[in-house]
Amino acid sequence: MTKIIDFQTDPSKYRHWRVEYDGDVANLFMDVDEDGGLFDGYQLKLNSYDLGVDIELADVVQRMRFEHPEIGAVVMQSAKDKVFCAGANIRMLGGAAHAHKVNFCKFTNETRNTFESALADSGQNYICAVKGSCAGGGYELALACNYIMMTEDGSTSVALPEVPLLAVLPGTGGLTRVTDKRKVRRDLADVFCSIEEGVRGKRALDWNLVDEVVANSKFDETVTERAHEIAAKAGHAGRKGIALTPLKRDFGDDSVTYSTVEVAIDRKAGIATITIHGPADAAPASVADLHKAGAETWMLRAARELDDAILHLRLNELETGVLVFKTDGDAATLLAHEALVLDNRDDWLANEIAQYWKRVLKRVDMTSRSLVALVEPGSCFAGTLAELLFAADRSYMADGEFEGDNRPVAAITLSAANFGPYPMSNDLTRLQTRFLGTPEAVEKAEARRGEALEAEDADALGLVTFAFDDIDWEDEIRVFLEERTSFSPDAMTGMEANLRFAGPETMETRIFGRLTAWQNWIFQRPNAVGENGALQRYGTGKRGEYDMRRV
Amino acid sequence: MTKIIDFQTDPSKYRHWRVEYDGDVANLFMDVDEDGGLFDGYQLKLNSYDLGVDIELADVVQRMRFEHPEIGAVVMQSAKDKVFCAGANIRMLGGAAHAHKVNFCKFTNETRNTFESALADSGQNYICAVKGSCAGGGYELALACNYIMMTEDGSTSVALPEVPLLAVLPGTGGLTRVTDKRKVRRDLADVFCSIEEGVRGKRALDWNLVDEVVANSKFDETVTERAHEIAAKAGHAGRKGIALTPLKRDFGDDSVTYSTVEVAIDRKAGIATITIHGPADAAPASVADLHKAGAETWMLRAARELDDAILHLRLNELETGVLVFKTDGDAATLLAHEALVLDNRDDWLANEIAQYWKRVLKRVDMTSRSLVALVEPGSCFAGTLAELLFAADRSYMADGEFEGDNRPVAAITLSAANFGPYPMSNDLTRLQTRFLGTPEAVEKAEARRGEALEAEDADALGLVTFAFDDIDWEDEIRVFLEERTSFSPDAMTGMEANLRFAGPETMETRIFGRLTAWQNWIFQRPNAVGENGALQRYGTGKRGEYDMRRV
Repeated sequence: MTKIIDFQTDPSKYRHWRVEYDGDVANLFMDVDEDGGLFDGYQLKLNSYDLGVDIELADVVQRMRFEHPEIGAVVMQSAKDKVFCAGANIRMLGGAAHAHKVNFCKFTNETRNTFESALADSGQNYICAVKGSCAGGGYELALACNYIMMTEDGSTSVALPEVPLLAVLPGTGGLTRVTDKRKVRRDLADVFCSIEEGVRGKRALDWNLVDEVVANSKFDETVTERAHEIAAKAGHAGRKGIALTPLKRDFGDDSVTYSTVEVAIDRKAGIATITIHGPADAAPASVADLHKAGAETWMLRAARELDDAILHLRLNELETGVLVFKTDGDAATLLAHEALVLDNRDDWLANEIAQYWKRVLKRVDMTSRSLVALVEPGSCFAGTLAELLFAADRSYMADGEFEGDNRPVAAITLSAANFGPYPMSNDLTRLQTRFLGTPEAVEKAEARRGEALEAEDADALGLVTFAFDDIDWEDEIRVFLEERTSFSPDAMTGMEANLRFAGPETMETRIFGRLTAWQNWIFQRPNAVGENGALQRYGTGKRGEYDMRRV
Repeated sequence: MTKIIDFQTDPSKYRHWRVEYDGDVANLFMDVDEDGGLFDGYQLKLNSYDLGVDIELADVVQRMRFEHPEIGAVVMQSAKDKVFCAGANIRMLGGAAHAHKVNFCKFTNETRNTFESALADSGQNYICAVKGSCAGGGYELALACNYIMMTEDGSTSVALPEVPLLAVLPGTGGLTRVTDKRKVRRDLADVFCSIEEGVRGKRALDWNLVDEVVANSKFDETVTERAHEIAAKAGHAGRKGIALTPLKRDFGDDSVTYSTVEVAIDRKAGIATITIHGPADAAPASVADLHKAGAETWMLRAARELDDAILHLRLNELETGVLVFKTDGDAATLLAHEALVLDNRDDWLANEIAQYWKRVLKRVDMTSRSLVALVEPGSCFAGTLAELLFAADRSYMADGEFEGDNRPVAAITLSAANFGPYPMSNDLTRLQTRFLGTPEAVEKAEARRGEALEAEDADALGLVTFAFDDIDWEDEIRVFLEERTSFSPDAMTGMEANLRFAGPETMETRIFGRLTAWQNWIFQRPNAVGENGALQRYGTGKRGEYDMRRV
């Protein structure tokens, strides 16, 4: 599996999903093309999915928010008879390298989370209409929706058969959403997760696995009714979306160039440098102008480009263990762009752009690469872009004038962006997480909002890890990067996953921290992935051969 | 490593630790016997430890609470020159099977947690006096103490060199305690965890890695001073301990028999049945009688025996994937024993017994085996023992009279024990965790305290998973156990670790859920444990050869 995976798509290219719009309700049909797998060697039978199917789904959810803000309810459903969705494709999982499995699960998890954030942040409510078998990743799709309706037709069931059938976990949030979102009693959850055939009808309702069970004869009509009730409450009708026009990208051998983002890859060193250019043009003068600019406005363009760059590096450049963030541009112009968005969040588009930055920054947090920020002369770590400093595992700041460098002295400018709108998955801001032990440091930093803080101040406020002057800068950075890229990448992944998320846990952090970590462990175990393990033997009629020693 | 590991020891057998008592201060010296390793093939140099060293330490902490309740401060220190503790022994780790590594880490984690609970629950404060190199598991020992003092002698440092040196994590709570207990800023934590040589003096204090740095010339005297100050505040002087007399155990080929606990192992089936006998004799009449009975009193005896049985099964019977809990005896007698303890927690011994049950039940929660409770006729699932029902992944209850069985009809009796004194590591009671989605169910159950609830009631209250009558009982249990023992043990471990701990997370759940899960993943990775991995190459002068692909 060495083919380049592209995260950009649009409805004209969809092979697996279809959306029908009905006023403020969107009917989202899963209709996976068996022959449309991202890689060779498997068929996507029974609405099973691979990363390609999920990339389209992520695109659907994203366009729903920007292109179809009028939508109040999205009904997730199957276009196939007798099957809702069979979950992740097992042959794909059986054949995939460990890193691909893990990254596949991470991306699908991030996409599932967007169903919930669409409701929480934008009032777009995902409801799920289950007809036919809904198993494993299929039920995890349903679990990520906010309201699950199930037909009672004598055969439709929901199931998490991963454990008995495949010796792996329902790892796309399944276990966590069962206990923490649906709060299924833990012993019933234990039973449910051990039953291959799943649970139907009244029992599913009693156990809170679904929200409503409807006689098959009235199912479609009841679903439509609920969807319109829910959509009406959202009150989005009449909104007019903007088009998410194709990204401008240029792939070189060791680079990707976007309009606001530049990625330079040094494969030998194992480092990718991501430079984000601040806006060159003035901010839109008004919300109306923001709508006119649409996808062209810097705040949205930069978010989309950064998102794509991160995903590209995650899946396609496995050996670049370190991501170095740089910025350039004019802080004041950037802060004007940002202010128009953050000050007008009662406008749906301004809100969507802010919410998208929240998601992109979370994607950065969740990226299993060492994240480093370099604050150099001429850089533009202000507001939204300054969040990258606090997302980074470490930051280095240039202190004062650099000989022969006529760019402005390096400075950091904090703004409203750093104190609320972009919480991490632990529900704290990055500065609150950073200063968990000294909350007064957040207040001290906030008191300096709007100031261009040079190295001495930034260091004193605890905003950067190290500040070095002209004499030491180059050597210090070089030595650090050489060392960092020499460490075991696995130890880095584990360390960063532990150090980044201090403080409270949420369903989201539990999914990525606890469930994912256990799943990754199992994804290494011979009982699952060995020659005679359950994943390899799936479909052969023989079950896995297990080493029964408990760990 | 197939030798039977014994968790029972006493000071007369210690090879690695020494305690000197100084009024209400205990000086605890780590003085590891290089040749005293639990297994062959390594030497415990530089105060490095293996499971045997930790079994002694756990015994020290336990006896401190029961035999030396007069102690208010315990000073953890090294008896060796120039080294405090070098952490877990690397050759031992390099040579150990995966399951042993994981169980070793779990036990050491549980022991570290007892330092903190000794303060929180009993006012015994562990302080750490660091002199000499304090690295990896050595610093994790210090982190688990509540106050860390470090000498400034030009060489003493604290360090977590696991990541750069060994390509594994500081997995005995290290990463979690750095971010969540000591709340070290995450970028500084990142730096700290990447520096082999560690951090000394003022920087260690500035980063909050230690609480006090003292000039070497005044170190011993200052430590003594602090210890006496802290101990005086505890006000434990004058208390008189009880002796933790040796457990009465009888090991058979497939059984372990204690005075109150019986373990029957069916290795072919992969099942161990643990039967706990309720007290035969009347409860002590008074707190004075409780003290007189000491280690003989049922509440303490049963806790010690159950604790030992669980540890024995965990480490020595890896293929018994299912633990079946049964009880027998008289509920009223048990509840009288329990009430004397729970109603008199202002007495130090009664408190210690209650606290010990809390720890034992947590140990059960953390045991990576499927936990099943069978409520049969004549059983004694009342109060403290009823907690086993709620610790179990599933429980089955016999409904009504069983033909030819003249024992009393199966019943469950709730008591104060089920509503507060034994919280799980998520800080909720087991019933609160069970009914996370329906908190009113806890109140309904509490309203029935003291009643002998037969199957119909217990089922209606949600206290058991399934109730079966005489006709179905045997078949249902058999089918379930056959199925359960056929599943992949790894998938079970992962599933149970996710389903058992719904709701809030604490430092403890984060250590076992997030940090441990990542460490276990790394403990499978070739970069750490492969032939050319860092653990194998340690000491050869060559560093690990890494596959640099990030996962």
